[in-house]
Amino acid sequence: MDERLKKQMEFCLEIDKEKNVFRQTHLSGKGRFENDAEHAWHMAIMAYLLKEYSNEPVDISRVMIMCLIHDIVEIDAGDTYAYDSEGLTTQKAREDAAKERIFSLLPEDQKEELIALFDEFEEYKTPESKFAHAMDNLQPLMLNNSNNGGDWIEHGVSREQVYGRQSKTREGSEKLFELTDRVIKENIEKGNIK
Amino acid sequence: MDERLKKQMEFCLEIDKEKNVFRQTHLSGKGRFENDAEHAWHMAIMAYLLKEYSNEPVDISRVMIMCLIHDIVEIDAGDTYAYDSEGLTTQKAREDAAKERIFSLLPEDQKEELIALFDEFEEYKTPESKFAHAMDNLQPLMLNNSNNGGDWIEHGVSREQVYGRQSKTREGSEKLFELTDRVIKENIEKGNIK
Repeated sequence: MDERLKKQMEFCLEIDKEKNVFRQTHLSGKGRFENDAEHAWHMAIMAYLLKEYSNEPVDISRVMIMCLIHDIVEIDAGDTYAYDSEGLTTQKAREDAAKERIFSLLPEDQKEELIALFDEFEEYKTPESKFAHAMDNLQPLMLNNSNNGGDWIEHGVSREQVYGRQSKTREGSEKLFELTDRVIKENIEKGNIK
Repeated sequence: MDERLKKQMEFCLEIDKEKNVFRQTHLSGKGRFENDAEHAWHMAIMAYLLKEYSNEPVDISRVMIMCLIHDIVEIDAGDTYAYDSEGLTTQKAREDAAKERIFSLLPEDQKEELIALFDEFEEYKTPESKFAHAMDNLQPLMLNNSNNGGDWIEHGVSREQVYGRQSKTREGSEKLFELTDRVIKENIEKGNIK
């Protein structure tokens, strides 16, 4: 097998480990915790189906691949819960080291390409990254809402915390933020969010 | 919420159930069984990274969405193991009913679009569907090989069965079939495939 394909296949096998990185979100039907690979799969399909609501036109293949790879660094760095303020202080350093190790398994050109996509997502500036982030927010909100806000209740999450994260959905999609806002307000009324 | 977005969100929530459909493939490191959502996520990333090996040029966003949705019908129809000859006789009828129910949750235009993509995948004629199928074969082969052929051994799978399925990878990618062929031969030599 030539060196290029060998490297590509090593990377493809390595990312299998993302299926063992569990998040704080439960599956619908009060199921088990969701893992990063499932979350990314779900986000990518949602991006494809909801693309008409992006504030700006997007290249959907770039949004999809961004969704699919955005959590790969968590293979080494672990999942940092959105409302874990302590974990968030060390998240960047942990994820930078992981990014270098994991993407270096690829041939140089693809390493550069995927790191550029990963960084673009993190920088939150392009229409594609803003829309991908909207999916990163909306997907767990949808699941949590379907479970009557169980994840918010369990972690004692406040409305300031939820809005702090979810209001950024507006940068990707005004329309999906309207939906988000309605879901949050309903969960505040029910007492699921403090 | 308007009717269109409501339908889209109902579909997005419904497909969460795909995370509970388990396959016969084990994760690398002799892990647990893999589920359909994880498998689809893995295939879509592999398609993106290995697209240079497609026999014909492909529209990669179409390949990716095809990979992501190709198993959604298994939410109702269940996973049919590639070498389960009895299950395979009823697979089409079970999957047709599931396809109609699940995609009907979407607005009409998107129902038609996703059914067309699903059918295109099943029909195995376009460059995109052939390459997506190559990923559907290569991804579990890669995992199974990493586990020293454990899934083949457990099911007592024969070389005719493995080649029967895997040789179709050639239609999508000669290059990836060369790799597949080498992996199969190594596993026959080791006694992992009868």
